[in-house]
Amino acid sequence: MSVVETSAVQNRRARAWLTRAVEPGQAATYALVQQLGPVEAVQLIRSRQAPPIVLSAVGSRGDEDRVDQDLAMAYRFGIRLVTPEDEDEWPAQMLHPMLLATERGLLDLAPPLALWVRGPVALDEAVRRSVAVIGSRASTAYGEHVAAEIAFGLADRGWTVVSGGALGIDGAAHRAALAADGVTVAVLAGGLDRPYPAAHGALFERIAATGLLVSEWPPGCAPYRRRFLIRNRLIAALSEGTVVVEASARSGTASTARRCRELGRSVMAVPGPVTSAVSVGTHQLLRGGDEGGARLVCSAAQVLEEVGRLGADLSEPPRAPPGSRDGLDDLARLILDSVPVRRAVAPERVARAAGVAVLDVLRVLPALELQDLVELTAEGWRLSAAERRTSCRR
Amino acid sequence: MSVVETSAVQNRRARAWLTRAVEPGQAATYALVQQLGPVEAVQLIRSRQAPPIVLSAVGSRGDEDRVDQDLAMAYRFGIRLVTPEDEDEWPAQMLHPMLLATERGLLDLAPPLALWVRGPVALDEAVRRSVAVIGSRASTAYGEHVAAEIAFGLADRGWTVVSGGALGIDGAAHRAALAADGVTVAVLAGGLDRPYPAAHGALFERIAATGLLVSEWPPGCAPYRRRFLIRNRLIAALSEGTVVVEASARSGTASTARRCRELGRSVMAVPGPVTSAVSVGTHQLLRGGDEGGARLVCSAAQVLEEVGRLGADLSEPPRAPPGSRDGLDDLARLILDSVPVRRAVAPERVARAAGVAVLDVLRVLPALELQDLVELTAEGWRLSAAERRTSCRR
Repeated sequence: MSVVETSAVQNRRARAWLTRAVEPGQAATYALVQQLGPVEAVQLIRSRQAPPIVLSAVGSRGDEDRVDQDLAMAYRFGIRLVTPEDEDEWPAQMLHPMLLATERGLLDLAPPLALWVRGPVALDEAVRRSVAVIGSRASTAYGEHVAAEIAFGLADRGWTVVSGGALGIDGAAHRAALAADGVTVAVLAGGLDRPYPAAHGALFERIAATGLLVSEWPPGCAPYRRRFLIRNRLIAALSEGTVVVEASARSGTASTARRCRELGRSVMAVPGPVTSAVSVGTHQLLRGGDEGGARLVCSAAQVLEEVGRLGADLSEPPRAPPGSRDGLDDLARLILDSVPVRRAVAPERVARAAGVAVLDVLRVLPALELQDLVELTAEGWRLSAAERRTSCRR
Repeated sequence: MSVVETSAVQNRRARAWLTRAVEPGQAATYALVQQLGPVEAVQLIRSRQAPPIVLSAVGSRGDEDRVDQDLAMAYRFGIRLVTPEDEDEWPAQMLHPMLLATERGLLDLAPPLALWVRGPVALDEAVRRSVAVIGSRASTAYGEHVAAEIAFGLADRGWTVVSGGALGIDGAAHRAALAADGVTVAVLAGGLDRPYPAAHGALFERIAATGLLVSEWPPGCAPYRRRFLIRNRLIAALSEGTVVVEASARSGTASTARRCRELGRSVMAVPGPVTSAVSVGTHQLLRGGDEGGARLVCSAAQVLEEVGRLGADLSEPPRAPPGSRDGLDDLARLILDSVPVRRAVAPERVARAAGVAVLDVLRVLPALELQDLVELTAEGWRLSAAERRTSCRR
């Protein structure tokens, strides 16, 4: 490594190297990195002085150094590496339960050493209020419909929809979140330059335009089967709770549900016809048993009742208080109803949505802001925090 | 009353009078009868010396005496009156929790004073191993299919299927139990001479031919709406557990479920599509809440796992033990497989089912009996008790 490298760059390069050299979740390697820091850990591994269990996990990959190529490839695809040293973007809070559980030896798979990320949103911010919606690839029209209803409802209330980017339920959830102008995060099991499944290439492009693609593997890595199981723990870790919409009897769902419970996260399941093979897995979860139970949910409101914090997202809404909306005239009301809940937009877009003149919007919005109904951010106008909460309850 | 009447007849006539004079479940009247016996209680009521609360519940009906007409009408329709004094038929054991809960003031509705019954089976015996399968009249094809599957499976394993005789789920459950050659009990909310709903007239005839029609009301009584709520507690009381197959949001199901829990009986519910209006009620039950929860069940086996006694009806079958069937030749095996699980039949019927000669059946059955695989009853051949249990586990 060059002498002009700063420590931050060294750390980043060391973690980039590790993401290719070691399969994620390898506990001994994770412990070594936690103990010595990534730079020294990599030096030990490359000089074959690391503990045998680490060296055997690395194998022949220890002789390779493709950091420059990986970073160049990532740059070309708009992929960035996010590491625990990136305090402004690393989802430390969401990963904290995983860290604790690992330190106590409760998990067989360690937290990620770094994450390859593509998309315009800060990872930490994207997953701060998030729910995973996952399920079978062999989904039915019923399952896709319900997954879409729930994901739309979550995104519409400002929650991020996390899923695995697979065909079936995952795809329906991502698409519905996009349709609601929400943020959606696809956690993938291979390099972000390689859309898998290929049929979701266009979907991944749309997700990367407003949400995030996330992977523990560097560009070029193939999504091997075992990598999906490793990936599943990350879906559980990066969301407040996981909703399983359809799952067959012997699916990976039970393991994902177990990961959730290990991390203290909610497991929810949507029932379906008992005659449907892809509802057998969700009914097993709902019946409980060895793997523990899941909460039955039918709607986004019920999901938020389960994961909602501080009572801000109750599914049984109290009657709306006689609010500040009451004094508004029709035009102001119309404009207020056209301001997005979460994502800030330009006044022109509000005008278009409301079907009124831009000048009217420019006149009314500041008045609404004075009443704490909307707020102006760097990106434009959106509902105020108080109004967003009220809007969630509707 | 005539001087030659025995005490037993007096008791019976008094209880018959009470079933017309007082709406069932009336706690004060029940307490009076428990305290003084039916004959003295009726004398007090008719002489207007009973407590005011009892007299007001009886009202002008206290002046009527239609016992002779009611008993004659019952006789004409093959209806008999079963009373707590009929020790060979009164379902004392099944009603015991209701009795205890009433004595402790935990129930707002008292146990029945007597039951009008039609059908060839002893009531006590019929409900000793029974499960209620109930649900919406506005059922879907899905709900009827699942109700039928579960009821058939229960009846096929020798369990009685109790239901309310209504259109929709109830009817599907009764019909499936009949199709399985099982015993089914319809608990009705009016006189057994009056088929209600009228469209189920033929069904009730079929039920009365091999199972039972049961009512707390004497012949001629109309099934008023409030009587269904009174009736519902009896469905809960006369079964080990209740399976709700479909129910809309504001149905009587929640109250039936509460009755079950009051009596310490299992409440079970079958999930369905969250998009179906008649699965809203079952999903509410499964989500729990104020009314307490229900257990999710998908099959007869899972129902029996919930209500099965002494581990004799586990839904997760252990591997079949290397049993006495192992030494059988093909013919014996074929004949054994054609012997009904529960209902005894003639050798001719076994021969027809197996597609073999009657002489072969007559030769093989006694051999199977020696190996304790079948048994000969007054009605014919059926599986032995041990074999019935094994057969349940398959």
